[in-house]
Amino acid sequence: MENFEFLSPTKIIFGKESELQVGTETKKLGRKVLLHYGGGSIKKFGLYEKVVKSLQEAGVDFIELGGVQPNPRLSLVHEGIKICREHKVDAILAVGGGSVIDSAKAIGIGVPYEGEVWDLIAGEIVPETTLPIGVILTIPAAGSEASKSLVITNEDGWYKLGLNVELLRPVFAIMNPELTFTLPPYQTACGVADIMAHIMERYFTNVKHVDLTDRLCEAVLKTLITKAPIVLEEPNNYEARADIMWASTIAHNDLLSTGRIGDWGSHAIEHELSAIYDVPHGAGLSVVFPAWMKYVYHHNIDRFVQFATRVWNTELAFEDPERTALEGINCLTNFFTQIGLPTTLKELNIPADRLEEMADKASNSDTKTLGNFVKLKRKDILEIYKLAL
Amino acid sequence: MENFEFLSPTKIIFGKESELQVGTETKKLGRKVLLHYGGGSIKKFGLYEKVVKSLQEAGVDFIELGGVQPNPRLSLVHEGIKICREHKVDAILAVGGGSVIDSAKAIGIGVPYEGEVWDLIAGEIVPETTLPIGVILTIPAAGSEASKSLVITNEDGWYKLGLNVELLRPVFAIMNPELTFTLPPYQTACGVADIMAHIMERYFTNVKHVDLTDRLCEAVLKTLITKAPIVLEEPNNYEARADIMWASTIAHNDLLSTGRIGDWGSHAIEHELSAIYDVPHGAGLSVVFPAWMKYVYHHNIDRFVQFATRVWNTELAFEDPERTALEGINCLTNFFTQIGLPTTLKELNIPADRLEEMADKASNSDTKTLGNFVKLKRKDILEIYKLAL
Repeated sequence: MENFEFLSPTKIIFGKESELQVGTETKKLGRKVLLHYGGGSIKKFGLYEKVVKSLQEAGVDFIELGGVQPNPRLSLVHEGIKICREHKVDAILAVGGGSVIDSAKAIGIGVPYEGEVWDLIAGEIVPETTLPIGVILTIPAAGSEASKSLVITNEDGWYKLGLNVELLRPVFAIMNPELTFTLPPYQTACGVADIMAHIMERYFTNVKHVDLTDRLCEAVLKTLITKAPIVLEEPNNYEARADIMWASTIAHNDLLSTGRIGDWGSHAIEHELSAIYDVPHGAGLSVVFPAWMKYVYHHNIDRFVQFATRVWNTELAFEDPERTALEGINCLTNFFTQIGLPTTLKELNIPADRLEEMADKASNSDTKTLGNFVKLKRKDILEIYKLAL
Repeated sequence: MENFEFLSPTKIIFGKESELQVGTETKKLGRKVLLHYGGGSIKKFGLYEKVVKSLQEAGVDFIELGGVQPNPRLSLVHEGIKICREHKVDAILAVGGGSVIDSAKAIGIGVPYEGEVWDLIAGEIVPETTLPIGVILTIPAAGSEASKSLVITNEDGWYKLGLNVELLRPVFAIMNPELTFTLPPYQTACGVADIMAHIMERYFTNVKHVDLTDRLCEAVLKTLITKAPIVLEEPNNYEARADIMWASTIAHNDLLSTGRIGDWGSHAIEHELSAIYDVPHGAGLSVVFPAWMKYVYHHNIDRFVQFATRVWNTELAFEDPERTALEGINCLTNFFTQIGLPTTLKELNIPADRLEEMADKASNSDTKTLGNFVKLKRKDILEIYKLAL
């Protein structure tokens, strides 16, 4: 186990009607708030009215900025920063999924910073302060509601980059599983793949003796595997929705990586898919992760055997552990198919003709590597894209 | 799943040599600190010198109060409050196990409160503020390093009472597994039983549909079951010590009870043992918990079957689930015996002659009940004590 520091300071307010507390919680953050959201769904399903009413009742003054798209864009972040400065906003309330929260986080660090916010996102300069962020989560997936992460796409060249610093953790996250009843099946499944990917990125590590966090990872994965088919059949199943929603937070608040070094190669490889083709992150991950696994499993067959036996209840073939390792990868692939996700680039309508360009972008150079479990060079990344065809 | 709020604001600093950060972390809490500790072990093994040096180097002024005993006493809490007031102490550094931390917490709420601190501990008045608490943990057991709990024994009548409020959570907890290498086997095992009990109190719930937290509970229990025999054989096994230490925190920071209502009957029943006979809390729990299980398992056989099959890998006897349930309880009992703990009152040299008095104290009256899984009246508590003989 590695030395670690861990602090999860986000206050979670979880359950039925929890969104009614947004006014009182937001009031603690500031006097004037940016209400940030995505497309029309929060208005369509009545959440918008509830939020506005709660803010008004608590006496919180707010200004709105909607229009966040999946794979949130830098241009809207710029707009948000401008609005916050003009109106002297001192906190941000993000109502939506990971894209909205990430956009809010980028605005949050951009407002007090005098230079170009992309320099912060690209990691050239470390942000020192942020506007406080509150969240009402509507899509369990990214885990951004309690994570130290954000991912933003720069339309100028379609670069998708992520930043990880502690000050990006929201102050509060309101999570009502009922708000996820209206999520369409495909988006629900994409969310599950995203959550599972966050765990698997942590699971495949070279750090030895991490049994406690291994088992915690396996516990959350098994829950997702059990609950995802249930919510696809019964979208209004509160209990299964609740398990998935809480899993999204636990998967990415870093508890599951305490003492470990995660991989994160698959995420970087996937980012090129969603940056260029704007595919949902979860669908990109359901394609990339099995391909990555097939490419790297020889590096540590034992770990893939553990994944197969503990997560998927595969029986260990004592005489041929490699077969068990491959069975685990097959189980994952079949599971993604079962919940309606693509597992090949073809299913995403991504042709083979830009794989070289994607490998270039993902690796940035021939010397830089991606991932930690296996350090992938450009040629490896290209092979993984090919395995995903 | 029940609605819940969850916030775990304690900064965990975990790993080798982490105690060297105590000066800089403590300095953030206050100018003048009470250094609170137990018996001689922190001096015997060199920790005391390291702490003093780190505090001095960081320019932290401190005054000392040692002498905390297991099952920490109210009289020392009074002394601590007096010292803190006289010396205008504005933060407390607890170096030790749960007893030291709980004593520090009681002093922390007592200093700013004008009345008698026991009224706060007994829950008659809700504490509104506390001195900030920092911790260097030396005994993984109570989970007090990140919990909202304290337990104090009032020598005037030997009442042992607990308080649970959010402001009792320490600001930071420094956890170096190497500091636990010198823990004697019996104390190590008592700690493991205490940690397991914290999980099992949460596990046995009447709340339905708590699969995610069920699995997290099972994950931590399985880790403890695997690692405890290792550290008893190899006291200096860093990795196994580390898993147990981190488990102690996770078991009791309330992550594992999110959305659930725990039982806590066994803890209350055990408190009478340690209050009257001053037995180690963990040894009391290893006696009481199996007896409690035998008394209540009929209430929900399925839950005990799940405990048996998932935690202990017992094969489900489809034609006779009760047998499986009982096998799980036997597995737990045998495990406690294997790691050197008592499972009967006799082994603790506790005679049968004061069971009635203990049942009186635990129930306080014939109408008050203990526990939530099964609500226990005085006669039930007495039966459990008898089952533990």
